[in-house]
Amino acid sequence: MPDLLPDLPGYGALRAFAPAARGPRMTKLLRDLDAAISACDLRDGATVSFHHHLRNGDDVLNMVMAALSRRGLKDLHVAASSIFPVHAPLVDHIRNGTVSRVSAAFISGPVGEAISTGVLPNPAVLMTHGGRARALDAGEIVIDAAFVAAPAADEMGNVSGSTGPTACGTMGYPMTDVAVARRTVAITDTLVPYPAPAIDIPQGQVDHVVQVPRIGDPGGIASGTTRPAEDPVSLSIADSAARTITASGLLAEGFSFQTGAGGASLATAAAVGRQMAELGVAGSFCSGGITGFHVEMLRAGLFRGLMDVQCFDLDAVRSYRDDPRHQAMSAATYAASHIGGAVVDRVDAVVLGAAEVDLDFNVNVTTRAGGILIGGSGGHADTAAGARLSIVTTRLTAAGFAKIVPQVGTLTTPGQTIDVVVTEAGLAVNPARDELADRLRRAGLAVRPIEDLAREAAAAARQPVPPRVDGRVVAISEYRDGSVTDLVRQIGPD
Amino acid sequence: MPDLLPDLPGYGALRAFAPAARGPRMTKLLRDLDAAISACDLRDGATVSFHHHLRNGDDVLNMVMAALSRRGLKDLHVAASSIFPVHAPLVDHIRNGTVSRVSAAFISGPVGEAISTGVLPNPAVLMTHGGRARALDAGEIVIDAAFVAAPAADEMGNVSGSTGPTACGTMGYPMTDVAVARRTVAITDTLVPYPAPAIDIPQGQVDHVVQVPRIGDPGGIASGTTRPAEDPVSLSIADSAARTITASGLLAEGFSFQTGAGGASLATAAAVGRQMAELGVAGSFCSGGITGFHVEMLRAGLFRGLMDVQCFDLDAVRSYRDDPRHQAMSAATYAASHIGGAVVDRVDAVVLGAAEVDLDFNVNVTTRAGGILIGGSGGHADTAAGARLSIVTTRLTAAGFAKIVPQVGTLTTPGQTIDVVVTEAGLAVNPARDELADRLRRAGLAVRPIEDLAREAAAAARQPVPPRVDGRVVAISEYRDGSVTDLVRQIGPD
Repeated sequence: MPDLLPDLPGYGALRAFAPAARGPRMTKLLRDLDAAISACDLRDGATVSFHHHLRNGDDVLNMVMAALSRRGLKDLHVAASSIFPVHAPLVDHIRNGTVSRVSAAFISGPVGEAISTGVLPNPAVLMTHGGRARALDAGEIVIDAAFVAAPAADEMGNVSGSTGPTACGTMGYPMTDVAVARRTVAITDTLVPYPAPAIDIPQGQVDHVVQVPRIGDPGGIASGTTRPAEDPVSLSIADSAARTITASGLLAEGFSFQTGAGGASLATAAAVGRQMAELGVAGSFCSGGITGFHVEMLRAGLFRGLMDVQCFDLDAVRSYRDDPRHQAMSAATYAASHIGGAVVDRVDAVVLGAAEVDLDFNVNVTTRAGGILIGGSGGHADTAAGARLSIVTTRLTAAGFAKIVPQVGTLTTPGQTIDVVVTEAGLAVNPARDELADRLRRAGLAVRPIEDLAREAAAAARQPVPPRVDGRVVAISEYRDGSVTDLVRQIGPD
Repeated sequence: MPDLLPDLPGYGALRAFAPAARGPRMTKLLRDLDAAISACDLRDGATVSFHHHLRNGDDVLNMVMAALSRRGLKDLHVAASSIFPVHAPLVDHIRNGTVSRVSAAFISGPVGEAISTGVLPNPAVLMTHGGRARALDAGEIVIDAAFVAAPAADEMGNVSGSTGPTACGTMGYPMTDVAVARRTVAITDTLVPYPAPAIDIPQGQVDHVVQVPRIGDPGGIASGTTRPAEDPVSLSIADSAARTITASGLLAEGFSFQTGAGGASLATAAAVGRQMAELGVAGSFCSGGITGFHVEMLRAGLFRGLMDVQCFDLDAVRSYRDDPRHQAMSAATYAASHIGGAVVDRVDAVVLGAAEVDLDFNVNVTTRAGGILIGGSGGHADTAAGARLSIVTTRLTAAGFAKIVPQVGTLTTPGQTIDVVVTEAGLAVNPARDELADRLRRAGLAVRPIEDLAREAAAAARQPVPPRVDGRVVAISEYRDGSVTDLVRQIGPD
């Protein structure tokens, strides 16, 4: 290069190039998980993240936490998108001090029970799916290492969710984590030649790749039943919920829809599908966790696309692999409130479940009667806030307890964002939606004050509503924006 | 919510939730381009970015710059991934002070000529594709507003490159811009119902959407010929280049390959393809800008995938739309040096062009003989650095000027990263690659000292090599890491 001018307007000091010699071809593949953990340089107090696309079939959280525990690390923060019964070994890692903080959008099984009995020194933080994405983007949670269960990966870190024996389909949750994590480790049981097919997470977002014999049990991906319920009570509730959607006026060209994967929700989806077919309504999209049932609705032409943050069963996994109308979305795109409008904000009607609903339409999906931690919002509060019409379907009682109660045991989703509660004894409309109540009445639906439903539920219950417990705070239920909807308190002696 | 504890260990001050009332359904669709510009709140000195997927058919840069000029903004920085002849109106915006800084990976046509004659008050900054991605990720360039020519978009900003009359296929360049831009405006001529099909850029990365009658001319996407050359000299060079690759030992199972879109490069690709078929070599992938010719190689089973930052013709656009083996990659994933290994680092052989090559194997693709700015690296220096074997194919002379010269007019790609120069008069091997030279000689290739090729080129030339001009600096040629390979100087009087 010729001599450089000392000053160039609008340009800093010039630095002449010095191209490096070309070394051997690089790889991100490390020998084993321990080597990857060493490469991440984790210290006591570090935050490690996990995703839950393998759901109750996930082996990765357990294998990583066992390795971290063996290294004697302490006070770790496990920032998981969700925690399932399969993650029971985490309880021991909490007890022995390896883990002192847990955050997740959903915690079920032994870990939730242990948190309820006070095993964690710091309160667990329960977030919504969108709130977790927001907290990550805002730097409120800084992930020191994200461990990605990768159904397939190549040695440069391209990750595919739809390839390999443990294919999980879309990878909406880790997409959000890897965008901000200081280090990302892809853990795969299916190392494929470069470049991986059907890349869901590109190589630039992955630092290390590790091959292990097995990342999980594909049979655990399906979350309970993902077929519509067929019992008469569920069908009656589903029919009322579907008629509510039709009567609301939203069941028109471009209709968009979300349901959970439970049998009752899918029974509602089936009933809505029948009404769409009858009325000749061409919908736009279904969103959320996607099941084979949603795939059938797509194939039947009821919707023109699926927006999928997570596949709930293997039919959905196959559909994502084969059908370009079945698109992936990140947790942020799905549900976050900070990105200028998420997919949930475009949903016309969402059908949600509840552990409890109270007279203010507040919903609890966090604790069961008696206060034990059994879940958390996941996308519940996100979709309720985003959808034009949010419907909670619930029976009056379950396991002998009333489900329509004076006050929820834990407030997960604010009643301001719940429009209708549908039960087998009729439905209640949020008083803020008078016009909607009129429409439903005109359509012949049994609109009743929620107080009446609560009274019937109490009468049908075999157990009284347990009082709120008043132990120390064991979990904080955060809303989408990071504000606090409620506190979960310790059960039993400290 | 019950009363909050004043202090929770490991958790900041609690803030009770206050869900906002649900307002009308949001949209990012604005009335027109002026409304979007107003929403971006651009000031004098702002940086505005553009991508070049519509190549010489792009209308978007011109329409945005005209609107910014009408508003009287001054001293803008146009940070374009590349600038083409169609962008000639930019010269007037430079002359009238609307634009005082330009950066791009490639500048051809009237804008390059005007820069060479000193129209810009600040030197233009020429980057590699990977270097531009690095500069963006490092915050060295802060984009105040990214304007994305969107072949299709929905009103929430989901952008698809493979839908609509101006479909351009993959959108690797804006993918990198929108990830860091303060504001992003999607400008589309094809507003589609929500959610867009085949999303390339998700809604969370787009702030505003504007519909215009036309974003460009699909006929301008194809960059000159994208068919193999058929003249005897080109075929002879192509044959030597292909034999070089075979003799190098790289033409084996998993072979990966990149060529440009020019006729000579594609003639080499055709020759390589024939050798792969003969030898029964199953390649892994082709990368880079992708043409219909690369698509044919994929379909013929010579490669199992395409990694595509930009479609160079409409056959490639259709293939990206229809064939999942044809995958998109961002500019960063393609070529950046800061992400721990880009796709270019996995390329076995790349075939590159040159305006000039010198005795140190340095390559100039930035200026033509006489010093006028006609291009820039694009991915040239990135692929040369990444590939195991980088081959420059060139004739000895063009337009009467020698192309093998004592010293390049502008150093774009350092000779340390160029392995072989192939001409119709034989080939020269970088002295640092003695072992390669031996292999090529053993294969019967005419390996000659580059000095001999330069002598023959000089003898065949009708014009002497013009001296380097010594005017003030009008452009800075940056290497992948932001260091400087050379300076481009003003032609003619100041």
